[in-house]
Parts: sequence; C-alpha cells; structure tokens
Amino acid sequence: MTEPTASGTPTDGGAAANAPQPEPFDAVDLIRTKRDGGELATDAIDWLVSRYASGYVADEQMSALAMAIFLNGMDRREIRDLTLAMIASGERMSFGTLDRPTVDKHSTGGVGDKITLPLVPIVASFGVAVPQLSGRGLGHTGGTLDKLESIRGWRAELSAEALLAQLGTIGGAICAAGASLAPADKRLYALRDVTGTVECIPLIASSIMSKKIAEGTGSLVLDVKFGSGSFMGAIERSRELAETMVALGEDAGVRTTALLTNMEVPLGRAIGNANEVRESVEVLEGGGPADVVELTVALAREMLRLVGQPDADVEGAISSGRAMDAWRAMITAQGGDVDAPLPAPRETHVVRAERDGVLTTQLALPFGVAAWRLGAGRARQQDPVVHAAGIELHAKPGDTVRAGDPLFTLSADDGARLPRALEALEGAWAIGDEGSEVLDGGPLIAGRIGA
Amino acid sequence: MTEPTASGTPTDGGAAANAPQPEPFDAVDLIRTKRDGGELATDAIDWLVSRYASGYVADEQMSALAMAIFLNGMDRREIRDLTLAMIASGERMSFGTLDRPTVDKHSTGGVGDKITLPLVPIVASFGVAVPQLSGRGLGHTGGTLDKLESIRGWRAELSAEALLAQLGTIGGAICAAGASLAPADKRLYALRDVTGTVECIPLIASSIMSKKIAEGTGSLVLDVKFGSGSFMGAIERSRELAETMVALGEDAGVRTTALLTNMEVPLGRAIGNANEVRESVEVLEGGGPADVVELTVALAREMLRLVGQPDADVEGAISSGRAMDAWRAMITAQGGDVDAPLPAPRETHVVRAERDGVLTTQLALPFGVAAWRLGAGRARQQDPVVHAAGIELHAKPGDTVRAGDPLFTLSADDGARLPRALEALEGAWAIGDEGSEVLDGGPLIAGRIGA
Repeated sequence: MTEPTASGTPTDGGAAANAPQPEPFDAVDLIRTKRDGGELATDAIDWLVSRYASGYVADEQMSALAMAIFLNGMDRREIRDLTLAMIASGERMSFGTLDRPTVDKHSTGGVGDKITLPLVPIVASFGVAVPQLSGRGLGHTGGTLDKLESIRGWRAELSAEALLAQLGTIGGAICAAGASLAPADKRLYALRDVTGTVECIPLIASSIMSKKIAEGTGSLVLDVKFGSGSFMGAIERSRELAETMVALGEDAGVRTTALLTNMEVPLGRAIGNANEVRESVEVLEGGGPADVVELTVALAREMLRLVGQPDADVEGAISSGRAMDAWRAMITAQGGDVDAPLPAPRETHVVRAERDGVLTTQLALPFGVAAWRLGAGRARQQDPVVHAAGIELHAKPGDTVRAGDPLFTLSADDGARLPRALEALEGAWAIGDEGSEVLDGGPLIAGRIGA
Repeated sequence: MTEPTASGTPTDGGAAANAPQPEPFDAVDLIRTKRDGGELATDAIDWLVSRYASGYVADEQMSALAMAIFLNGMDRREIRDLTLAMIASGERMSFGTLDRPTVDKHSTGGVGDKITLPLVPIVASFGVAVPQLSGRGLGHTGGTLDKLESIRGWRAELSAEALLAQLGTIGGAICAAGASLAPADKRLYALRDVTGTVECIPLIASSIMSKKIAEGTGSLVLDVKFGSGSFMGAIERSRELAETMVALGEDAGVRTTALLTNMEVPLGRAIGNANEVRESVEVLEGGGPADVVELTVALAREMLRLVGQPDADVEGAISSGRAMDAWRAMITAQGGDVDAPLPAPRETHVVRAERDGVLTTQLALPFGVAAWRLGAGRARQQDPVVHAAGIELHAKPGDTVRAGDPLFTLSADDGARLPRALEALEGAWAIGDEGSEVLDGGPLIAGRIGA
C-alpha cells in the first residue's frame, strides 16, 4: 500500500481534495466531541472562541455547542480555557497607574438586590478604588444601571480616562462596561438568552469571570445567590458555581472570595428602580432594612479584607457620613442630581392581609416577575424601564400581621399592568397561624468560599 | 388578594405589560422543556415548525433544540407530530390520477449503494409507478442524481406534470425533489449538517418520512443500513430507526416496510459515479456483483409485494430484457444518451496485495471517504463532483488473493488527490492467512420490519 504523504484528520477535505481547509479545527467535529461527552482541548477552545468572535463559527453552531455543554458539562480545565479565550477576544484594562488598591464585587443577580449602590461608596470611603462595571436588567432581576438612571441627570457611560480619574479621586465608580471587554462573551451571552442555555455553571462562570478579569481588578468578591429567586436554585449548585469562579479568579491572579447568600425571599423592602435607590440612601443614612444592611456590611468587610484592611470600621463609615459623602461625590461626578426628587408612580395598588397571623413565605421569583410586569424590568434589550414602577414590601417573612394590614404596594405608570402582576403573585406569599414555620430559606449568608 | 383578570404563561410579558406577545408559545420555553427532559406537546411542535419555516424561530434556536433532542430524545408521539408538522410546512403531492399503484424506496445511505438505478426500472416494468425523488450526495455517501448525471444529457429536474406523464407511460422516474416538499425539513436538514446533530433517530426519521409522505406515494420500502459505513452504526440503532419510520408511514396511511441491510463493507465493486452507473447496467444485463443483485432483487420483491404482486418474477424481468427496456426509456425521457460512453478518469492508481492470503476486511466508511477525496463526492453543497472519480474493488472480503494481485484501483482527474485518498484507506483492508475469520458484518439482509 502506498504511504500517505500528507497528514490530517480523516474527515476533512484535505489540501489536495475538495474544499481546501486551512483551519486547524472543524466546528462540527468539536460540537460532536462535546455532544458525545468528550473534552475539548485548550487549542480547540482557543480556536472556537476566536473564530466565533470573527464570525467564522456561526451562532447556530455556538448554540448547539452551548446546549451540549449545558447537558454534558465541562471540567475545570475546559472552563479555565474558555474564560481565558473569552478574555483574549478583547482588550484588557489595567488600574496599575492608580495609587490605591482595586476591588470589585459581582452579584449573580436577585430580586431587590440593590447592594452595589450603598456598597461602592462605603468601600471607596476607605481609600480603595472600586471600579464597578455594571449591566442592565433582563428578565426578573433588575440592573444596577437601570436603578441609578432613576436619578435625574445621572449618566452610565464613562470613558476609560474618566473612569480612571474618578477612581483616583473619589474611589468609587459605577458605570456601563465598554464593548471592548470579552466581546466573544457578549455575543455568547446574548445567544444563550434566546437558546435556553443560561443556567449552566461553565458558561455562567466563564462569562462573569472573563469580564471581571479583563477589567483588571486586583481583588474580587462574588455574591453568589441561592434559592427560588436565583439562577442556580439549590445551594449545592450555587456552591459549585462559587467554587468554580473563585478558582478561575485565583488562577488569573485576582484575589477572589465568594459569599453564598439567600435569594429565597426578596432582599430588603423595595423591588424596582427608584424605590431601590431610596432604600440604598436609607442604608447610607444609617437606616434601611436589616437584611440589606447585613449583606452590605458583610460584603464591604470581605472586600476590605482582600485589600489589607481586615479591621476596617464599616459601621463607622456609615455613621460618620463618610460613605454618604462618597455616594454624593460619585453620583455628582456622573451628572446626577442627588437632591432631586425620585420619580413617583401614577398608579398604586395595596394588597392587604385577609386574616391575622404570621407571614410565612414571600417568594423572590414571583415578586421579581411581578415587578418586571409592572414595568420595572424589560422583556427585550431595547425596551425602556419605568423607573417609578415596582413593589414596596410592608411585611417580611416572620412578621406578625393583622387582617387589613397592608402587605405590599404595587406601583406602575399604567393601571392596565396590575392584573398580570397580581397574577404572578398568586401563591407567592402566605399567612399562617402564630407559631407556623417561616419558609425564608434560612440565614442570609450561608457560606463563604475562598482563602 | 385581588383576583387576576387576565391569563397567560407566567414567564411572558403579557398583553398589558412589556413587549406584547401574541404568540401562543415561546421558543426559549420549548427549548428548556426538551433540555430538561420533558415532552413537547403537539400544538407546541406545530407552532415551532411553522414559525421556524416562517423565520420567526431562528436557526440558533432550532440548533439548540436539535442538540437537546439529540441528547434527550423524543417519544413516538413527538416524532409523529414533528413529521406531520414538517409535512404541513409545504405542499403535498398526489399520484391519485395515475391508473397504477405507486411505490417508492428510500435508502439511509451507504458506500457503493447504486441500488436505486437498477431497482426503479425493474419494478416499473411490472406496471407500477415508481416516483423516486432523490438527492445529491454530501459527505462520504454518494447521491443518486450525481451518479445519473454521469450519463451524457441526463437531466435531474422534472416538472410535476412531466413527472406524472413519465410515471403514467414508463412507470419509473428518478428526479430531483422540488423545493415545495417539507421546506421546514430542508432548512433543518442543512442546519443539522453544520451543528453536529445528524445521527439522531427522531430527526432522521421525521426528515425522511416527512418528504416521502408529502410526496404522495402509496407504498414505501426503506433500506435501513447498519455497520461502519452507515449513519447509525450498530444494528440495534438501525432497527430502532426502521421501526420508528415504519410506524410513521403506517400512521400516515402509507404501506411501509423496511429491510435492515449490511453496510459494513461497500456494496458491489464500484464506488463513485460513472462506475456505479456501469455496474447498475451490468445488473440489468443479468450480470453484476452478487451482493448488488441480491439486494436489488430483495427490494424489488418487497416493493412489488406492497402493491399486490407478491409472486412477481423479478429475475424474469431482468433476463427478458423488460427491465433494461424500462431503464433505456426512463433515461432517454430525461434527455440521457444511454449509448454514449461514460466519462473516463485521467489518473488511476492500482493497489496490489503484498502477500498471499484471504481478504479479511474492507471497511465501507474509509472507502467512502477515499472515493470522496478522489472527487466523487462534495464537501460543500455547491461543489461539483468528478463523475469519473472513484474506486473499483477487484477483491471482496473472503476472496483469496495472491501477492501482486490488484486489490482496488483509485481513479481521479488529478493525481494530487491520490495521497489523501490512500491515507483514508490505511487500516481499511487486511489480508490474513487462509482460514482467517472474514469481518464483513454478517449477512447482507439481516432483518425486515413491517407487516
């Protein structure tokens, strides 16, 4: 038998045969490998992501691969390779010119989760740079930028230079992430949203961490949610996601820790946009709901610990007004009028207790969906949000209520939105006899991952 | 709690909320259902296919769904619904105006499978209409239309009227399927090819059967391959595919049976295009390789049995020349010159036995890949094929060979194609001592499914 004179994979066309194929990999081969439960090699993942970014690998191929990853998983090495390839698809920022350490925080998203708003000025007040590149909401979880845009004049967009300058003076900045960070991830993220491949640890972890690593922060604290209102649901899955992300951060030289936090019930009493800004300001004034204060303080301590201030007096930063000063400086620097009134809703609807008893449950997901239907969130990326729309909770699980007491108030710009919001809330709360078990998913902070 | 006044799914935007959604289903919800191992309801499948055909459901969504179907399967009811929805996406033909019964045959594809060419005129010679709407080859299996286009002047395209007229006079017609049959399946078929979702029983069965049922044949015989050169591989998987397709046919009122046939080794001695036409003509002349004759006769008997001629003298149709007359009439009617010489290759390369012994193996897949690399097949839909390219087998498994005997001859228009073709053949054949076990996958016809 004549010896072959060329080498290659048995299924490609070959240089001298049909359709000369200069590419080192074939997308269909790689999809089939993952489909059949195999591992993708480092150079295969690099090729896939770079050629997806360039448009050679098509969306329909990437979505089939994402589904195969969803169902067959990826090991730690593959997830790390995917993350690094996403980073390599774009620019990397650096805060090395700042004379202060940087620390960032990321939450996997929840209902009523406005923690970023009080947290950034608190941490910044300790001379730390907090570059919080944030997103907008989609689905039932709100977006930090949407909330801040309730403040008259506030602008989410900051140039790289303006961001650096603000971090060097005020320390804190919450702004829109530029398009240059991990663009392949941006494309895949949008694709996952329409192809049923969102709730997948390898894809979530690489998406979050590629953006955070590319952003150039020195330290990172992750707030990984569990419970009915989170993407992951069960705490075991949230723990796995947290461990995966912490390992990715540490591998990339970013000091990373994670808190596992409860999203069985909404966080705080405000769900929406303007009302969440109001609640955040209350926290900075020394008030606010106990759960919001507890989580804000815990995350602040964790962030400050990572930058070498384990004994920082977080409560003192609030009571002294230093955190509020940082907030005012930060909002003002981005055009916001901190003293302007926040938008008020045109329509409100109060739901009251029909009996005496104790509020035993208040599920985050339906309250998130209801707020979204009221106009606080968007169904499509291009939709506007209604800043005054949302829900105010007057009672939290465990609270004693009397028949006729207000339980929560729905707010909207259009009363026609109320019925569908109320429909989402059917079965989302319950009043039991005094002494009934309260189903709130347990403690607010259930665990910590990292060194 | 105020009663809701509107109804709908909990995850859509609602008539009065964001992004009014008049569609009864959401593609992402349906993808997630299948992803999580659930069943898709009949009306959901109807909606998906019709909205995929109209472009509302995007390719990236359908490819994610196809991967979820590949990995999580579909039950019989879902497969039937998918098939009927594919049919409903296009036109349905009817041969009801013909004064003869119709019977069609479909092969799942193999290497050296030219059976359609002698089979159609044989069956047609019994006064039966055989509307053989065929395709072109892609990958390592050849296409019937590509083979017939080796004949000078022959045209694959027939209008619906010309097809009906040819069936009414000659009885047999092999022609290109129009674009109007199951267009949603055409789009999905092309998508599966680039997204690693080809070898999936629900998708294969619904694709084949939707086209055959829409075509309007009264009876159908399926040649379902097993073995290394087939899509399915193991005979158990081929049997499952055959049973699925037979049930789909019977449910739709098409009398359907299937033969399970061996594709461990190439069929006959010719692999390519012009050489397969030559071998087919040999069969019609009463010669040809034993396996090609055996399968042709078995399929002809099965087709004739379905149209009420269980005792038809198939061998007599060949020996009497009636089948050859039908072949000549059929080719001539579509512009073909039956007496013109077939294209000859510019380059040939003979591979000889390096020792005395018995040919113990000859794997269909690598021989198919080699013929494809020689130019007999195409890598992309738009590529041309080289009609004279291919492989001639001089020995078959079980044959005794002497050192120096020719084993097979490669043919091409360009000698540069030879090395990659030879590379594909490494390990694809072997010579053992006399008495060695012959690995040919067992009998040619291993089973029959259907009433």
